[in-house]
Amino acid sequence: MTIELTFIPAILVILLAAVAGRLLSMKIGQPEILGELILGVIVGSFVVLSPGAQEPVSALAEIGILILLFSVGLDLDWGSFKEQAFPASGAATGGIILPFILGYAAGTYFDFSSTEALFIGTSLVATSVGIGGSILHESGKLKTKIGALIMNSAVTDDVIGIIIMTVLFSFATTGALPWIDIVLLAVFSVLFFGLSLTIGIKALGEISERIPIRGENLLLGGLIVLISFALIAQEIGLAGIIGAFVAGITLGQTHFARSLPENVSLIGKGFFIPIFFVFTGMSFDLAAFTSIGSFAAVLILLGVLGKILGCGFGAKAFGFSNRESLTTGIAMIPRAEVALITANFGLTHGLIGQDTVSAIIVLVIVSTLITPPLLWIFIGET
Amino acid sequence: MTIELTFIPAILVILLAAVAGRLLSMKIGQPEILGELILGVIVGSFVVLSPGAQEPVSALAEIGILILLFSVGLDLDWGSFKEQAFPASGAATGGIILPFILGYAAGTYFDFSSTEALFIGTSLVATSVGIGGSILHESGKLKTKIGALIMNSAVTDDVIGIIIMTVLFSFATTGALPWIDIVLLAVFSVLFFGLSLTIGIKALGEISERIPIRGENLLLGGLIVLISFALIAQEIGLAGIIGAFVAGITLGQTHFARSLPENVSLIGKGFFIPIFFVFTGMSFDLAAFTSIGSFAAVLILLGVLGKILGCGFGAKAFGFSNRESLTTGIAMIPRAEVALITANFGLTHGLIGQDTVSAIIVLVIVSTLITPPLLWIFIGET
Repeated sequence: MTIELTFIPAILVILLAAVAGRLLSMKIGQPEILGELILGVIVGSFVVLSPGAQEPVSALAEIGILILLFSVGLDLDWGSFKEQAFPASGAATGGIILPFILGYAAGTYFDFSSTEALFIGTSLVATSVGIGGSILHESGKLKTKIGALIMNSAVTDDVIGIIIMTVLFSFATTGALPWIDIVLLAVFSVLFFGLSLTIGIKALGEISERIPIRGENLLLGGLIVLISFALIAQEIGLAGIIGAFVAGITLGQTHFARSLPENVSLIGKGFFIPIFFVFTGMSFDLAAFTSIGSFAAVLILLGVLGKILGCGFGAKAFGFSNRESLTTGIAMIPRAEVALITANFGLTHGLIGQDTVSAIIVLVIVSTLITPPLLWIFIGET
Repeated sequence: MTIELTFIPAILVILLAAVAGRLLSMKIGQPEILGELILGVIVGSFVVLSPGAQEPVSALAEIGILILLFSVGLDLDWGSFKEQAFPASGAATGGIILPFILGYAAGTYFDFSSTEALFIGTSLVATSVGIGGSILHESGKLKTKIGALIMNSAVTDDVIGIIIMTVLFSFATTGALPWIDIVLLAVFSVLFFGLSLTIGIKALGEISERIPIRGENLLLGGLIVLISFALIAQEIGLAGIIGAFVAGITLGQTHFARSLPENVSLIGKGFFIPIFFVFTGMSFDLAAFTSIGSFAAVLILLGVLGKILGCGFGAKAFGFSNRESLTTGIAMIPRAEVALITANFGLTHGLIGQDTVSAIIVLVIVSTLITPPLLWIFIGET
């Protein structure tokens, strides 16, 4: 039996689930988001949103993940983040190449077409940065060397993942490589990061010295910068959350950083972010598990091992300890946006089958749920 | 030419309009909401929301008005509020009877049917509490005697207005008076206010002593109480914002009141509330002005005079000064929810014509826009 909820009752149920999830997490010594995700899965098993509630709730969840990444960007240590850019390229590259090869190989081994195998490989490529960012934030490890390495790797990985996805979609449908798109995406990405983190910091820094806005007006202004950056990132073809993260880093280097992070964190953790995680849990399609076969099991295993080994050896090659390298690999396990977009594109274009989509959905669910407890243990000891 | 915006771009434009509106208000020495409403009207003249953005934006606006009333309730002086309950009944009653009679008389004078005249009278009855509450909050007059009187009158007026509306709708469609509905509405309203403000305060007060939650968790808990109260009020048949207001008063009498009001105010004024006022401005259907005739002009005049004189003499009868009585009357001018619901019900049931609906819409727009500057002057001098 399922209960259909309209908007305001749905928000009440989601917020109550978030509280229950946080209490559960506290009880079992786990990060908050694990409890929120689990309660979301539970609530999702007997609650459906009315057609009128679906869009508003998912809009609040979207704001939630934007605020989460904005908050992580604001609290980042910009100095160590810059220092880790170079080693992070190693971890990111390893964590892209190995899962892609493993996914492609598994697809071939299970007798899928080479196109379908390319889709499977691509779905394993990109990390979903929300889980890792949230746990780094909660554990207080965001400002450490390892926190900077992980965030750096996750962002690099996202940009490259989107480039690979662009290439694949174009190649699979037209047979041609979209050179112009790739070059534009790469150039605009570099310009966006480069300009934001130089001229952007300088300009917003000057504003922050001259205009002493505080409290609610500062929050309003901060959210405007956040949304603007997210929209620019989306225009370029990147994920909006990458823009939100860059907005956070940029404002974090200005005088606004004295009170903005606390206010953003309040509105985020006190309302929007728990809505994102509970809603994410609710969206998990557990029906996908009913048809789970050996392929899905192999995909999960390769998805997890691909990141741990790929990122791990990448980090190791740049001189990180075994423990740090392993932790980086674990933080990169979660897959979500890129995997789901890839699956959806493949399905709607008739390039991959429903079974493959189900397997990818199961991978998204499992990788999202196992990372918080795993990372919580490892990050605590680095 | 109009521009269609999807959700995230729409939020950006609305937040920018809010900033521009606040700067405008500061420049011309007016309350923030006037600037936000005006900028909303301007933005609304060239921006439309995409079908997918309509519901999410209106959901954020709905949360905004709930948080506004919650915030007003939290910051209220409960002692003076209780003291003003008796005199407020005078102001509320005067402000209900006179506009109703004037509206009915105008309808008859302009040769409308007696049913249509009843709808016109009813549409003038109930004040929209958001404008007054917002300006009392911003002017710092919420905790004064006059602030308590106004909030009390507005709430009483809303409850009675909804009872009158219930009676009218039933009578106009079935010809019978809905005695059971009226009694249930009255009994449940009294129970809701009574229990919330006695047992509710006591229970939440005990919880606030035992469980020392703070920051984001307190905010989350507060929002849960707010939404629960709003839903209970809606179940009874009252407006959700009345429930939000009662939730604010209740939590305001507990230990949570040490940091909750500031946090609620931050997320309200820093995000949700400006969205409500800009969106309200955007929703104003200026096309209604094109068909404005002598009837609409008379309706506006009577709507304004009805509240000023009705509430004013009501307050005066309870010993308030001329100035205080006039200020109370002005604060009660805005009409919105009840007027629009009445107009909509009448139109969809074929009981009133499109001209009458347009006149009521014009009344809502004009009364909403003239009250902030008028009240700002008068409240400042009481």
